[in-house]
Amino acid sequence: MRASQFFISTLKEAPADADIVSQKLMLRAGFIRKVAAGVYNWMPMGLRSLRKVESIVREEMNRAGAIEIVMPMVQPAGLWQETGRFDGMGPELLRFKDRHERDFVIQPTSEEVVTDIARNELRSYRALPKNFYQIQTKFRDERRPRFGVMRGREFTMKDAYSFDRSAEDAGKSYDNMYATYCRIFDRLGLTYRAVAADTGAIGGDRSHEFQVIADTGEDAIVYCPASDYAANIELAEAVAPAGERPAASQPLTKVHTPGVKTIADLVRFLNIDITATVKALVVEGEEEGSAVLMLVRGDHELNELKAEKIAGIKRPLTMATPALINKAFGANPGSLGPVGFKGRIIADRTVAKMADFVIGANEDDQHYTGANFVRDCVEPEVADIRNVVVGDASPDGKGELAIQRGIEVGHVFYLGTKYSQAMDATFLDEDGKPKHFEMGCYGIGVTRILGAAIEQNFDDKGMIWPDSIAPFNVVICPVGYDRSEAVKAAADQLYGELQAKGVDVIIDDRGERPGAMFADWELIGAPHRVTIGDRGLKEGKVEYQHRRDSEATAVAAGEILAHLLAKLG
Amino acid sequence: MRASQFFISTLKEAPADADIVSQKLMLRAGFIRKVAAGVYNWMPMGLRSLRKVESIVREEMNRAGAIEIVMPMVQPAGLWQETGRFDGMGPELLRFKDRHERDFVIQPTSEEVVTDIARNELRSYRALPKNFYQIQTKFRDERRPRFGVMRGREFTMKDAYSFDRSAEDAGKSYDNMYATYCRIFDRLGLTYRAVAADTGAIGGDRSHEFQVIADTGEDAIVYCPASDYAANIELAEAVAPAGERPAASQPLTKVHTPGVKTIADLVRFLNIDITATVKALVVEGEEEGSAVLMLVRGDHELNELKAEKIAGIKRPLTMATPALINKAFGANPGSLGPVGFKGRIIADRTVAKMADFVIGANEDDQHYTGANFVRDCVEPEVADIRNVVVGDASPDGKGELAIQRGIEVGHVFYLGTKYSQAMDATFLDEDGKPKHFEMGCYGIGVTRILGAAIEQNFDDKGMIWPDSIAPFNVVICPVGYDRSEAVKAAADQLYGELQAKGVDVIIDDRGERPGAMFADWELIGAPHRVTIGDRGLKEGKVEYQHRRDSEATAVAAGEILAHLLAKLG
Repeated sequence: MRASQFFISTLKEAPADADIVSQKLMLRAGFIRKVAAGVYNWMPMGLRSLRKVESIVREEMNRAGAIEIVMPMVQPAGLWQETGRFDGMGPELLRFKDRHERDFVIQPTSEEVVTDIARNELRSYRALPKNFYQIQTKFRDERRPRFGVMRGREFTMKDAYSFDRSAEDAGKSYDNMYATYCRIFDRLGLTYRAVAADTGAIGGDRSHEFQVIADTGEDAIVYCPASDYAANIELAEAVAPAGERPAASQPLTKVHTPGVKTIADLVRFLNIDITATVKALVVEGEEEGSAVLMLVRGDHELNELKAEKIAGIKRPLTMATPALINKAFGANPGSLGPVGFKGRIIADRTVAKMADFVIGANEDDQHYTGANFVRDCVEPEVADIRNVVVGDASPDGKGELAIQRGIEVGHVFYLGTKYSQAMDATFLDEDGKPKHFEMGCYGIGVTRILGAAIEQNFDDKGMIWPDSIAPFNVVICPVGYDRSEAVKAAADQLYGELQAKGVDVIIDDRGERPGAMFADWELIGAPHRVTIGDRGLKEGKVEYQHRRDSEATAVAAGEILAHLLAKLG
Repeated sequence: MRASQFFISTLKEAPADADIVSQKLMLRAGFIRKVAAGVYNWMPMGLRSLRKVESIVREEMNRAGAIEIVMPMVQPAGLWQETGRFDGMGPELLRFKDRHERDFVIQPTSEEVVTDIARNELRSYRALPKNFYQIQTKFRDERRPRFGVMRGREFTMKDAYSFDRSAEDAGKSYDNMYATYCRIFDRLGLTYRAVAADTGAIGGDRSHEFQVIADTGEDAIVYCPASDYAANIELAEAVAPAGERPAASQPLTKVHTPGVKTIADLVRFLNIDITATVKALVVEGEEEGSAVLMLVRGDHELNELKAEKIAGIKRPLTMATPALINKAFGANPGSLGPVGFKGRIIADRTVAKMADFVIGANEDDQHYTGANFVRDCVEPEVADIRNVVVGDASPDGKGELAIQRGIEVGHVFYLGTKYSQAMDATFLDEDGKPKHFEMGCYGIGVTRILGAAIEQNFDDKGMIWPDSIAPFNVVICPVGYDRSEAVKAAADQLYGELQAKGVDVIIDDRGERPGAMFADWELIGAPHRVTIGDRGLKEGKVEYQHRRDSEATAVAAGEILAHLLAKLG
C-alpha cells in the first residue's frame, strides 16, 4: 500500500470524552471515529487490524471443525419469548417494533436463533456433534457506553454454539474450544490467561474466561505462580487459614467510639491492626423481612456472588436497608456485630479462625474489643464469602495467590440443556427417543481484542502492535521521497521486494516532514520501520527500528530485505 | 472440505411461501433458512457463495483505489435530520429509540454518516479524490418482503461514496466505478447489462443500473441490438414516428358503445385495430383541483416518471379522482377524450402523429371514431410520456429497440452536491475557499447477486453456479466410499491432489446412495462433478460431468486431475 493512496488521519490530541488509553490512541491514530455514544466508524487503518483479528479467529474456528453461518442482526421476538429472555433481559436488549407493529430485537447474542436452527436441522444423533459460529455485528444498549471499543454498544463478536448428544461429548466440544481459544490468542500475540469463571445456575466447572493481561483491565484475575491455578476474583476460593482458632485471651470490653462508622475510622481511633477487626454486613434473607449478618475481616471484601449462592440468601444479593437493620439489630449501620444478635450469622472462613477481635456493639458509637465466638456470641455458620487477596493460600495447596488485572476478551461456557429445554430442541438418539441437545457457547469480543491489545502494548508515543494484527507490519519511511531520486529509488525498490514476498508493507510517500512522519507511525504502532535517507544511502546504509527499540540500527542497504524477513519470522 | 465435516441440509420441497425459483432453490439447497419475513439465516452452504461474492467485490473495489471502512448499522437520528431523510423517508426506514429515548435508525444506506466523515476528515483539496466503501448489513423495513434474498429486509450491500473537487473529477470517479462494476460482474460470471437510469432531481446523465439478465427479472431493460444503447424502461426514450401526421379522411362520428369501459372493450366492440385507438388518462396538475388529459395510443402505456417530469404536473404523479374527472369532463372514466375538453392536453409523440383515431366522447357509453386534432379539438402539447415497446426506433437512430427482463444488482449514481450542501460538507480548495464536495454513490446488492445468479442459471434439477461463486467448484462423488477400498483410495487421492492445487473441492464421504448424492449436488449446483465407482475403476475410468452437461464423460483415472484443471481454467 502507498500511503498517498490510503487514508491516514492522525490527531495531536484525543477528544476530551475519551477515558482510557486504548480509546485515546485509537481515536488519535484514526482507527475509529465516534458516531454516537458507544457507536463508532471503523476507519481504514483500524479496519485493517480488525480484519486480521477476524481472519485469525475464522481460521482457527474452521480448523477446529466449527462451521460458519450468519444469523440476522434483527431477530423476531417470538424466539426470545420461548426462553424468557425477551421479557427477562434488561434494557441492554434493544427491542423495537417493525412497521407492522411486530416485536423484534437486535441480537446481543444468538442462543435462541441457533437453537432454532438445531431443532429444525439436527434431527438425528448422526448429525452430532456440530458447532456453528458466526462473526457478526452485535448490539447491547449499555446504560453508560465507555472505554471506546471495550464497552461499546455496537460491536463485532464471534459467537459459537456447540450441540452434542451427551454431557460427556459436550465436554469434548468444550475442551476443543478451550484449546482453540488458546491457539487464537497465541496467534494474536497477546499475553493472556484462561481463568475459571462462575457457571451460575448451570453448575459444574466448565466456564473459563480468556483475559488479556493489562494493568488497566477492569477484572481482577487470581492465579498461583507456582501452579496452573487461575480464576477470576468472583470465583477464586478463599481457603480457611491453617490451624485452629486461638483461645480467647482478652475480656469482652465495650469501648465508646464516638463518630466511628467505618473500619478505617475504627483502626485509626483505636490504633489497632486492621486484621484484628471484623466487618459486619447485613443482607436480606430469602424470607421476607429477615436480616442475615455476614462477617468478614476488616481488610477483606465481601464476594457478592459467593454470598448469594448460600441457601436462604435473597438473590440477587441485596444489602439490608437502614430500616431493616434498625429493626433487626436495634442499632444503626456503623456499629453492628454478632453479640446479642438473634438472627442468622455467617462468618467468613478467616473470621471463623479469629479470637479477641474488634466488632460493633449494636449500639451507636460503641464497639467491643476482645470479642470471641461461643463465649460472647453464638458459633456462626462458616462459609467462603470473601474475595481472595494477594498472599492467600492457593486452593490447590501449591503456594500463594497473586492477582493481576485483565480484560475479558473470550469466554467458553458449558450451557447444558438450559436453552434446548426451554425451546424443546431435541434430536432422535440411537435408541429412537428424542433427547435435548447438550450445548456450549463460546464468545470472542473481536472489536474488544483491539482495545485490549493496545492496553497491553503501548508507550508514550502510541500503540505497539503484535505482528499478527498490526494494520501494517512494515512501514518504509523515506526521508525526502519527493526530493531525492536516490531515496525514492531505494524506497520503491524495497517496497516492491517486500510486496513480492507477500509482506504487509506500506510506503509513506506523502512527503511529510520526517518528524511528523515518524510521529504518525509511532502513534499507529507499525512494528517494523525502515528509514531511508540520503545521508545513510551515501554510506550504503538504511535504518531499521522495531517499535519497541529505543534506537534505530544501521543496516547495509543490500541486507535490509533479509534483515526484515528475519525479523518477520 | 469433507462433506461429513460440513453441513449439507437439502429439502425435497420448498416451503409453501417461497414465490420464485431462486428462493425455492436456496431454501431447498440449504443456502438460507427463514427467521422472519425478509430475514434469513445464511447457512454454511450459502455463506460460502456469499463470501466469494464479497471477496470479488472487495478485490475490485480495492483495485479501483476505493478504501474500505465500516459504518455502524445503528446510526443516530441527528445526522439523518440534517438531510431531511429522518422525516422524509417512508416507513422502510427503521427508526427506534434507545434506552435513553434518543432516536436512531438502522442504516438502509450511509450517505449521512459518510458525508459526516468527509466534512470532518477531508479538509483540503489535497485529500481528494477519495472513495470510501463498506460491505455491511443493511435493513429496509419493506412493506411486503418477498422473493427470498432478492427483496429481503436485512441484506448485505456494498455501498461506496466518492468525494471530488469538481463535477469533472466526479465524472472520472463515476467512470472508474462504472468500469469497476463491469469487472466485478464479468468476474462473477454473470450475463448483465449496464443501462442508463433516471437521475431524478440531480439531472445529468450519470446514473446506470447494472442488471443481471433473467426472464424472471422484475425490471424491463430496453436495448438496441444494433448499437450499445441501453436504458431501463423508465428512462428509455420513445422517439416520434417518422413522417408527418396524415390528413383527416374520416368524419367525426359519435358511436353508442354501451358498457365499453376499456380499450380492450372498445377494440372488441368496434372490431378495430388497437393502434387506431387513443387512451385518455387524467392526472392532477400542480395547480390545486386542475386536471390534465394525457393521451397515449391504445396499446401503449403511460410512463409515470416521464409524465411527472413535465412542468405543471403534480409530483409524484397522481391519477385524478373520479370526482375531479367528473367535474373537469362532465363524464365518468371509460369514455373520456379531448373533444370539447377545455383543460390542458398532452399527447404522446405517437398520438400526435395519428389521424382518424377512436377516442372517448366525454359522455357515458359514447365514443368518437374519425377524431382528428385541430379539426375536432385543440392541437395538444406533445411529449414523450409512454414506455417504449419492442420494435420502437432506437433513440440513437441505429435500429429497433428490444426488451429483456433484468434484476438490478448494482447502481452507480452521480449525486452532485445534494448531500454535501444539505450537511454543509466542505473542503478548502486551492484558492483557500470552502467548497461543497461533488459526490457519487455506488451500490451493489451483495446478497441479491446470489438470487440473481440463480434466476439466470438453473434447470429443473437445481442451481448451476458460475465457477467464481459456486459454494464448491468441484465435488467428488465416490459411489460406495464406505464399502469399496478402491473407490475410497481413488477418491481420497484425487481430493488430496485437488486440494494441493488450491482447488475449492468437496468430497462427498457421507455414504449416501448415489441417487440421493447426485440429486443433492445437482440441486446445490456445484459446476464440476467427478464420479468414482468400482465399475469404472476396473476399466481405469472415472466420470466427469459439468453441471450443464446432459451426460457424464468417461476420463482415464490418471488424466482426471489434468482434465479438471483444464476445465477450471
